[in-house]
Amino acid sequence: MMMGDDVENGNLGLYQDRPRTFPNMRSKPYTPLIFRVLMGINVRVLVILLLLGFGFVFYVGASTSPIIVFVFSVCIVSFLLSIYLTKWVLSKDEGPPEMSQISDAIRDGAEGFFRTQYGTISKMALLLALVILSIYLFRSTTPQQESSGLGRATSAYITVAAFLLGALCSGVAGYVGMWVSVRANVRVSSAARRSAREALQIAVRAGGFSALVVVGMAVIGIAILYATFYVWLGVDSPGSMKVTDLPLLLVGYGFGASFVALFAQLGGGIYTKAADVGADLVGKVEQGIPEDDPRNPAVIADLVGDNVGDCAARGADLFESIAAEIISAMILGGTMAKRCKIEDPSGFILFPLVVHSFDLVVSSIGILSIRGTRDSSVKTPIEDPMTILQKGYSVTIVLAVLTFAGSTRWLLYTDQAPSAWLNFALCGLVGIITAYVFVWITKYYTDYKHEPVRTLALSSSTGHGTNIIAGVSLGLESTALPVLVISISIISAFWLGHTSGLVDETGSPTGGLFGTAVATMGMLSTAAYILTMDMFGPIADNAGGIVEMSQQPESVREITDVLDAVGNTTKATTKGFAIGSAALASFLLFSAYMDEVASFAHESFKQVDIAIPEVFIGGLLGSMLIFLFSAWACAAVGRTAQEVVKEVRRQFIERPGIMDYKEKPDYGRCVAIVASASLREMIKPGALAIVSPIVVGFLFRVLGHYTGHPLLGAKVVAALLMFATVSGILMALFLNTAGGAWDNAKKFIETGALGGKGSDSHKAAVTGDTVGDPFKDTAGPSLHVLIKMLATITLVMAPVFL
Amino acid sequence: MMMGDDVENGNLGLYQDRPRTFPNMRSKPYTPLIFRVLMGINVRVLVILLLLGFGFVFYVGASTSPIIVFVFSVCIVSFLLSIYLTKWVLSKDEGPPEMSQISDAIRDGAEGFFRTQYGTISKMALLLALVILSIYLFRSTTPQQESSGLGRATSAYITVAAFLLGALCSGVAGYVGMWVSVRANVRVSSAARRSAREALQIAVRAGGFSALVVVGMAVIGIAILYATFYVWLGVDSPGSMKVTDLPLLLVGYGFGASFVALFAQLGGGIYTKAADVGADLVGKVEQGIPEDDPRNPAVIADLVGDNVGDCAARGADLFESIAAEIISAMILGGTMAKRCKIEDPSGFILFPLVVHSFDLVVSSIGILSIRGTRDSSVKTPIEDPMTILQKGYSVTIVLAVLTFAGSTRWLLYTDQAPSAWLNFALCGLVGIITAYVFVWITKYYTDYKHEPVRTLALSSSTGHGTNIIAGVSLGLESTALPVLVISISIISAFWLGHTSGLVDETGSPTGGLFGTAVATMGMLSTAAYILTMDMFGPIADNAGGIVEMSQQPESVREITDVLDAVGNTTKATTKGFAIGSAALASFLLFSAYMDEVASFAHESFKQVDIAIPEVFIGGLLGSMLIFLFSAWACAAVGRTAQEVVKEVRRQFIERPGIMDYKEKPDYGRCVAIVASASLREMIKPGALAIVSPIVVGFLFRVLGHYTGHPLLGAKVVAALLMFATVSGILMALFLNTAGGAWDNAKKFIETGALGGKGSDSHKAAVTGDTVGDPFKDTAGPSLHVLIKMLATITLVMAPVFL
Repeated sequence: MMMGDDVENGNLGLYQDRPRTFPNMRSKPYTPLIFRVLMGINVRVLVILLLLGFGFVFYVGASTSPIIVFVFSVCIVSFLLSIYLTKWVLSKDEGPPEMSQISDAIRDGAEGFFRTQYGTISKMALLLALVILSIYLFRSTTPQQESSGLGRATSAYITVAAFLLGALCSGVAGYVGMWVSVRANVRVSSAARRSAREALQIAVRAGGFSALVVVGMAVIGIAILYATFYVWLGVDSPGSMKVTDLPLLLVGYGFGASFVALFAQLGGGIYTKAADVGADLVGKVEQGIPEDDPRNPAVIADLVGDNVGDCAARGADLFESIAAEIISAMILGGTMAKRCKIEDPSGFILFPLVVHSFDLVVSSIGILSIRGTRDSSVKTPIEDPMTILQKGYSVTIVLAVLTFAGSTRWLLYTDQAPSAWLNFALCGLVGIITAYVFVWITKYYTDYKHEPVRTLALSSSTGHGTNIIAGVSLGLESTALPVLVISISIISAFWLGHTSGLVDETGSPTGGLFGTAVATMGMLSTAAYILTMDMFGPIADNAGGIVEMSQQPESVREITDVLDAVGNTTKATTKGFAIGSAALASFLLFSAYMDEVASFAHESFKQVDIAIPEVFIGGLLGSMLIFLFSAWACAAVGRTAQEVVKEVRRQFIERPGIMDYKEKPDYGRCVAIVASASLREMIKPGALAIVSPIVVGFLFRVLGHYTGHPLLGAKVVAALLMFATVSGILMALFLNTAGGAWDNAKKFIETGALGGKGSDSHKAAVTGDTVGDPFKDTAGPSLHVLIKMLATITLVMAPVFL
Repeated sequence: MMMGDDVENGNLGLYQDRPRTFPNMRSKPYTPLIFRVLMGINVRVLVILLLLGFGFVFYVGASTSPIIVFVFSVCIVSFLLSIYLTKWVLSKDEGPPEMSQISDAIRDGAEGFFRTQYGTISKMALLLALVILSIYLFRSTTPQQESSGLGRATSAYITVAAFLLGALCSGVAGYVGMWVSVRANVRVSSAARRSAREALQIAVRAGGFSALVVVGMAVIGIAILYATFYVWLGVDSPGSMKVTDLPLLLVGYGFGASFVALFAQLGGGIYTKAADVGADLVGKVEQGIPEDDPRNPAVIADLVGDNVGDCAARGADLFESIAAEIISAMILGGTMAKRCKIEDPSGFILFPLVVHSFDLVVSSIGILSIRGTRDSSVKTPIEDPMTILQKGYSVTIVLAVLTFAGSTRWLLYTDQAPSAWLNFALCGLVGIITAYVFVWITKYYTDYKHEPVRTLALSSSTGHGTNIIAGVSLGLESTALPVLVISISIISAFWLGHTSGLVDETGSPTGGLFGTAVATMGMLSTAAYILTMDMFGPIADNAGGIVEMSQQPESVREITDVLDAVGNTTKATTKGFAIGSAALASFLLFSAYMDEVASFAHESFKQVDIAIPEVFIGGLLGSMLIFLFSAWACAAVGRTAQEVVKEVRRQFIERPGIMDYKEKPDYGRCVAIVASASLREMIKPGALAIVSPIVVGFLFRVLGHYTGHPLLGAKVVAALLMFATVSGILMALFLNTAGGAWDNAKKFIETGALGGKGSDSHKAAVTGDTVGDPFKDTAGPSLHVLIKMLATITLVMAPVFL
């Protein structure tokens, strides 16, 4: 490939012509409303306002519990640290103009899509808030509920406010993820011209910034809600509600978070993979040009996709994971404390917040331990970035084990059962080990150093068909080990909790469920570092794209290629981690739902008997929901990709000069097509996930009313939730692993095995990779969110089923 | 393609050289032991023995119930009719030598494989029988059990004898299916040279023969066991067991049947698809020769596969479906009759046998209504065979509705609830309508006249990847409607039964479950005709292959092509029917399991509470079992197909004359390779299905013992069974529909759409078809069997979990 004048013109022209090529994307520079309001205020006023806000928050916190003050302090310190990190990243240079031009185009595309997407999401969230409000205002309440100081109207406003706050924070989490990645990408590319280590450090710190913000916001949001409700409702004063019932008021926050995360993940996932598949199908397969080649009209759309699909969506996803899991653990802690009549239950309730505060601390240390300045000479020989990241992870995990054990001693010690904290510390260890084993299993099935991917690559040598069959089998098979691991950890954590010595009035042990909750906490006790590693991936991917598009020398590309490959591994392992925690948390969320129903119905609700036909049908419908949702998510990518293929083919035909760099492709049109198509396509699966549990619960409630089955609606929804969770875990494992394995089988062949690039085996492997794209980056991650959203929606909508 | 001398030599040589080319397959002509013994006896002695046998059977039957005598008579008449049908088929000519030579090669291959396969299966069955014997001999029994006249040893021998009889009958069912199809195929080919209608009639009557034998054998086997146990144990005489408990003794028969069917389906399914995929990948894709071309070394293996995979396996599959479903309905009928204290419970217990007796009658009329001699002129214009088959089906279904209503009035009338029989007749109607809707949905998703397959075909135009994504989405989506239909029919049948007026001692309605059972009966009330249509498919397919291989004129091929296409449709609809009845029966089998456990444990066992962690884990493991089983089944096909590909490639390289008809391919080696590979590969998934429920149940029983949870093993197994059933239904629907849709999308393109044969779209569609092969013909049908086998294995192994 010659880089003549045409190339230079083509690249420079990109920026100059942009108003023509990005007509829909450059209407006005975009900053979200909340930032605009903040920036409109005088800096001094802002500082005073902030200080006042902090003062108020601390005052409320201090009136609630010293634990809350501790949580607030840690969160604020980590926000300050994240501001330092982002200032550090932004202080790096943006590289030569050809780089920053591409980066600008990506930023425009990403922000334009984000604006439209979150506009749609916020309208839906407002509508849903109205629905929730009317449901809670018109539901029937019992005299006890009214007398507990929490009237119908109060609980309605509380739930809606929590929902909206959760949705807003989830949206901000997504925005922050994208905001930093569209700024860090070009700085990483630029640094790659100097040193691999500096590039790595920029990507890690950018990822660390959004990880700290996401985790910190989840923690502080819940802490503020908790403290506010505590003070406002006069909790624990005579005649008002008990502190052990307080966590139930927070479920709205979790639902808001998962509602936004679901659409963010769906829209972003469809966007990124439709652009990727579309670009590859015409570019790589038909025209034979490399990935991220500037001649491909869909290349900018592809790079935009990394930001909106991976960074923004993963930010929102992790935010809702942590929020949902903190809230359900708080509910379980409260229920257990109530049953065991523990004198000061706040330790059991606030434990999850403290665990994640320590998570912020230890992850920050892990992030900062990755230093770029050890060797100041330019262009050091490339050290394996994976080793560096794993060193940081080792630091984090060792500290996490120590702080976790400390937290259990601090908060879970009770005179009733003096050794209970030790059992719970062991539960945490079970969670940490489970996370580790999950990551190992994911690597075994998706890394080409191991048997499965090599067998998959070998099956490519007999054609497209055998490659797909082998990949599907591999993915289906890969569900077995994680399920065994999850089974063992649920049983052992339950058993450790059960034997902790905590007993209820009748003397029977009650700590089992809380044991599983603590194990989930343990699994997520390094969430911020994991999220940092995950965010690292798309930033490195984008940086590689910018380097490729701006035609940098081979040595620079080598550096970004290495970073990109590491990013792929960390992305895959994070998915294993995410599904593992979802699986462990699922049982938790299910129990929280049963507690919630019991509390609403003022009736014991402890059994979901699948021998009742209606309940069995609920389960059947729940599993079916997962299949249908996956179908629609994959089909959305397929359809959108076809639109991209047609547009790219059209451009190659109508502008024959593109292939010789004589004409510039119309990148903007591809961006616009993918954006509008993915917004359209995200509605159907998203609506399915939200509407179907409500409809099923309501229908069976009516049926139960007429056939004389009390609580039938709630039972059927419980079965739906449980079967959907089980099928969702398996389906997500299948989709993620198959996708990852296909990707790496292709990479393995590209290393020269089985004929290498361009051989028939490679073509078959590319087909597998294409199929795997929507599996692993659209349907799979959306299922993680779906599982948790089902749990939170059933929690919030429980009054509809009763 | 020229048909020179080489062709003639090639074809004639096939027969003459066979001892060399089929070294492993032609060791000695094979007849199963039971046939050899029978044929060794003098004809008169045989007739006398048979008459004596019949006399004994009728005597025992008469001592039991007049209903049994009716069932015996119908079965014997239909056996006589099936002998007439087979004589009629065998009286047809075998066509010219080049046809019968091919047919002989196919027969040798099929019988060789059958011998080895059933040798392996029978060894495993004997081993399992020993295991069951020792479990039953060493299990703990309660004093009540001992006093009920059924000691430990007696119940052990009864269960083992029933198991072995079930396994034997299932094996014979498979053999009969294959026996007739390897004989009918060449007769259909030969008749196709004369008239389409005659060919159709031969295929239908051959299918009808095995359908009548399969259904008749299931019915008479259970009836004989029932009558023998009744007389032997002195049922209903004072101090011995009650007739309502008798059906529980039959579960061994169901398990034996499903055990053999599982391995028959797995082995046969792997064989047929590995040969098919292997032959296509090299023949069609690499060498560009048409399907069933004599130059393809794997062509005979492919044709053998139709017989062992479709005919033999489907015979065993349908046999076990009917047996399992009759037995579970008998158990439920008995339980209900006991609870309602119905005076003469035998009507409720024997109802399923009568339904299937009428099934034999109405299906025979349907089969005989298809006549070939209306127009005696040779080569009549081809009438659409689908119309003819559907006319026969209409006759059958109308008669079935009438006889079904009659049977409910005859057997389910009780003075306690005079209108109950009417409710149950409506339940039957629900079942029949469900079957109809299921067939319609399957057609909608797999027929290229409708939207989904056309969209799938369109997605082939953008490449292999989008074709696979679209097919996977289509398959996943196609699970939704069937689940909704099943949900509605379970609820409405349950409701109809519930309101039938049958009440237990406490006055609460008890007929609900029996209502679902009757709906399942209704669904299967035309099983023999459905099986006939299903058997028709592979016979027509084989006939087409023989016509193609023996290079018949175009007009003959046209006739077999039409028959083949109809066969594809009937095969797809039968699968919808099979999975529908499995889904409806699943809830039934689950209830039977709960009754069985209650009866063994002498404790009420009515709830399976998924809020208990161990039970939830049982569910997780159950769903995982389905994923892992599907993975191993698909991987087995992939691996075996790769062996075929390598062998075929080797032959094309080492014998370059093959392509010019100058050298004869070594068909025998391909047959031998596929046979040994598929026997090896069937063990792993089969063992998984059998061992895992036993291991899980036993482990949790031990765990429950140490943690003080009684019945924990049984509960965990119940959840495993239920989640596996739900996931199995969904997975089977997904696999079957996706496979069928890919197949027909390819056929649609072959009609000339989107570029037609040879275009890039066609290549992508062929990839989809290849992927779909193991989905729809190996993993999918094996899952049908697996679902029912899990139910019967848990029934038989219940003592292990207690």
